[in-house]
Amino acid sequence: MGYLSDIEIARAATKRPILEIGAALGIPPEALLPFGHDKAKITADFIANIETRPAGKLILVTAINPTPAGEGKTTTTVGLGDGLNAIGKRAAVCIREASLGPCFGMKGGAAGGGRAQVVPMEDINLHFTGDFHAITSAHNLLAAMIDNHIYWGNELDIDPRRVTWRRVMDMNDRALREVVASLGGVSNGYPRQTGFDITVASEVMAILCLARDLEDLRARLGEIIIGYTRAKAPVTARDLKADGAMAVLLAQALLPNLVQTLEYTPAFVHGGPFANIAHGCNSVMATRTALRLADFVVTEAGFGADLGAEKFLDIKCRQAGLAPDAVVIVATVRALKMNGGVTKDALGSENVEAVRHGCANLGRHIANVKSFGLPVVVAINHFVTDTEAEVRAVQEFVAGHGSEAILCRHWAEGSAGITELATRVAEIAERGAAQFDFLYPDDMPLFEKMETIAKRIYRADEVVADASIRERLEVWEKAGYGHLPICMAKTQYSFTTDPARRGAPTGFPIPIREVRLAAGAGFIVAICGEIMTMPGLPRVPAAETIGFDARGEIHGLF
Amino acid sequence: MGYLSDIEIARAATKRPILEIGAALGIPPEALLPFGHDKAKITADFIANIETRPAGKLILVTAINPTPAGEGKTTTTVGLGDGLNAIGKRAAVCIREASLGPCFGMKGGAAGGGRAQVVPMEDINLHFTGDFHAITSAHNLLAAMIDNHIYWGNELDIDPRRVTWRRVMDMNDRALREVVASLGGVSNGYPRQTGFDITVASEVMAILCLARDLEDLRARLGEIIIGYTRAKAPVTARDLKADGAMAVLLAQALLPNLVQTLEYTPAFVHGGPFANIAHGCNSVMATRTALRLADFVVTEAGFGADLGAEKFLDIKCRQAGLAPDAVVIVATVRALKMNGGVTKDALGSENVEAVRHGCANLGRHIANVKSFGLPVVVAINHFVTDTEAEVRAVQEFVAGHGSEAILCRHWAEGSAGITELATRVAEIAERGAAQFDFLYPDDMPLFEKMETIAKRIYRADEVVADASIRERLEVWEKAGYGHLPICMAKTQYSFTTDPARRGAPTGFPIPIREVRLAAGAGFIVAICGEIMTMPGLPRVPAAETIGFDARGEIHGLF
Repeated sequence: MGYLSDIEIARAATKRPILEIGAALGIPPEALLPFGHDKAKITADFIANIETRPAGKLILVTAINPTPAGEGKTTTTVGLGDGLNAIGKRAAVCIREASLGPCFGMKGGAAGGGRAQVVPMEDINLHFTGDFHAITSAHNLLAAMIDNHIYWGNELDIDPRRVTWRRVMDMNDRALREVVASLGGVSNGYPRQTGFDITVASEVMAILCLARDLEDLRARLGEIIIGYTRAKAPVTARDLKADGAMAVLLAQALLPNLVQTLEYTPAFVHGGPFANIAHGCNSVMATRTALRLADFVVTEAGFGADLGAEKFLDIKCRQAGLAPDAVVIVATVRALKMNGGVTKDALGSENVEAVRHGCANLGRHIANVKSFGLPVVVAINHFVTDTEAEVRAVQEFVAGHGSEAILCRHWAEGSAGITELATRVAEIAERGAAQFDFLYPDDMPLFEKMETIAKRIYRADEVVADASIRERLEVWEKAGYGHLPICMAKTQYSFTTDPARRGAPTGFPIPIREVRLAAGAGFIVAICGEIMTMPGLPRVPAAETIGFDARGEIHGLF
Repeated sequence: MGYLSDIEIARAATKRPILEIGAALGIPPEALLPFGHDKAKITADFIANIETRPAGKLILVTAINPTPAGEGKTTTTVGLGDGLNAIGKRAAVCIREASLGPCFGMKGGAAGGGRAQVVPMEDINLHFTGDFHAITSAHNLLAAMIDNHIYWGNELDIDPRRVTWRRVMDMNDRALREVVASLGGVSNGYPRQTGFDITVASEVMAILCLARDLEDLRARLGEIIIGYTRAKAPVTARDLKADGAMAVLLAQALLPNLVQTLEYTPAFVHGGPFANIAHGCNSVMATRTALRLADFVVTEAGFGADLGAEKFLDIKCRQAGLAPDAVVIVATVRALKMNGGVTKDALGSENVEAVRHGCANLGRHIANVKSFGLPVVVAINHFVTDTEAEVRAVQEFVAGHGSEAILCRHWAEGSAGITELATRVAEIAERGAAQFDFLYPDDMPLFEKMETIAKRIYRADEVVADASIRERLEVWEKAGYGHLPICMAKTQYSFTTDPARRGAPTGFPIPIREVRLAAGAGFIVAICGEIMTMPGLPRVPAAETIGFDARGEIHGLF
């Protein structure tokens, strides 16, 4: 098709020195800790000093339910940032860091695509500035201290059968999902069954992404519940005196990372919690810092708007005191076709009817986001096979729902292809139309919060849960955790718990299989269906083809 | 005593920008990848470009057998570097990176002490530039690919009982020493017993430290033997196609790290393999690069000279084409007293007789190092309780062995306390007195190499090994591994395999319990006695007291 690959575009890009990117935001050189010449962390002192500045406008980018066709949410986030800069606004973007493990499985990079990318792409997809490694270390230090405590006499009377804190590794390794540890006799401890999750599933990751500063980070780490005593009382990281050392391991990782887009827009790439058992967006530190340095901050939430935007609004905004000024919902003609019943191999042919049918999914997300009091614009992320009639069908549908759908060509054209969206978003945000409110108040009972999300966002009939789950929620309410928001862990492919049900289904239940208290992160996870917290590698992992080519450039990673 | 603690001295130090430290070595700013303002990696291109420059003088710092009294080998390495600069020589030091795991157990930092330290101390003892995390990732990617290969049909016919490649973590965690993995049913794979070592024990660490460049690194990674097929044929990382992706993960970690001493001497802190099952010295990349940038390079080897110096000379120098120009053996009056039979609590009182008695240990190390054709100077690392008579006893003993022992006060005084040693070392090195040769030739049979080390260095009567071990060595010789050097894994506290036998014993056997082929690192490990490859935490781990104080400074780490 004559298009260059993402990595070819990224490599051909001329990057500006990161000190220059920082200077454009008014960050003095001594407030940047460089990592090479194209990455930097922003110092804690500088962040504390700008705390009282007025905040810029916050733009949330979310999407319809994801399909194998791809929506391009990160690409649109990056493109919109570039577009806002192109029309003369001072903008920055905030996105998540990529997990290293999946790069060696089948997933490509996570830094945008086409002409809307964040660079340096290789670094971002590999070790970057070491944040995830620090999280892995802090998480596993706590795990080691738990088993060590039991080994040396178990003064806290931890029930080894009720240790819920597992270990983590930033690797797709199914062999570690379930293990029996401490084998080998007296000197190695007390055998017990446990396992490993991937690092992005760690509560430490969620904590790092929700903490406002180092003090808040340490306080949250101390609240982590690692398991229960034989008398069923919770045991915390603070009880084990692990919180101080964990904070020391995490102090640098807590500082936001600054990089740039292909068009030199400052990009904060920081934190990356799972979007199912956690809240799935970049760090509060990055978003808050960016808002004090730029007039417009474009950020994204994981998965579709039913999960990602809802958590962004009800968890992250609630905890961090944030409120978006406008929301962009990304859709593609292809993904809408799939929501309209077309299979992946038939996506190449025009099918206006299927597009119209699939728009039901988009329509529900528009209505949901508006119910938070937020103005919505739809971005149609253009793909080469889209026909004019298909695009028009989406625009007509969205107009009928009182919003506007704007065709964006940032993937192929960079900022030049997205100025219309940028202009419209800037207008809406500057007009101050948003009247943001949470979906539910803090003091609503926990089960009722789950019902509210399920009925008002997913449009389920009911929430089904065993008596044991309801009892557990009551215990937590009595223990003082009733004010926490809910983090729904559900398939991202459907409003229901069945990944195959696309579109906008009604008349279904949401069964809650399990609830978990993430006391440090500050939310309660409601698990609906199978949630995988340690991926495996495919039959032929990407790792087999990753390496250096003759020119010393990495191949196979993207 | 009026002395400041190491951390107080380090914090009070004024560091120079790392670009300035690099400039003093003639490294242009674009050849440095900064990590903050006080750490940098040197680019591969620059290293390749200086390859043909003449090498400076190489000074090895080693020691008598370690005792709980402490010898101060790193402190002396750093001090001697500062001392050489103080007398007008252009010097750099090369030392190992610290392992993060043990910092949370009981061990303090590993960056020198007193007025002879490398800074930034906190960073060096925590994540530093992420090298160990990269090694952990590369090691564990290979492990995941092994189990993944078996899971998807085991085309290579790997015998799951004969997988020797374990996993690693940079943490003291005894619970992971022996585990059964892949539990939980069909989707998680085939259960098998395995375990974790600490990262510094990884063969990947040894490989990174012995590789000359990225190409050599990848070739060595490919040679790693991960286990055996059901037909008992070795399976390599290359067979699993893991070597390319591992090299990608390690490429940045392979670049030497540049920091500075308290007196602004450039310090290369890079790599840190175990000194028992591996060779225990900093990377070849760092040493070779430093030699092309400085006139004098001071480096250290792990443990005492019987293990550390022997491996430095027979493994590292052999593989890297290095040859020292002079060797400094560090001794302290206190450690010599312990070698002379004094217990730790009686070290405070003068005991010239015990010093004389303990000098037997020093004498044997002097003779051993001289047997490599290398000139020796003894550094008496001064401690406040040392008496004049005790120091004189050491000097007389050493003079009687045809060498010179020089009292050094670098711990208390910095370079001003070590100019005599620096002057003497410079003279010897510049005179070109060294006539270095290895202890044994490449083509000596493997078992005979072990006998040579045991008899000529340890002064054992014989090497004892089961027939199965000798057969294993013969198999390896036939398979083309007969030219490899030997890496002895033995207690560091004694010439014998009994840690309690101090001094200079004779009349003992060296029993070889096990042999291991490290085909990627390029040596054969001979294990004599229990070797711990995953430490545990003590009853009250240092982690419990580590944290931030009210001023935001780390406490408890040192």
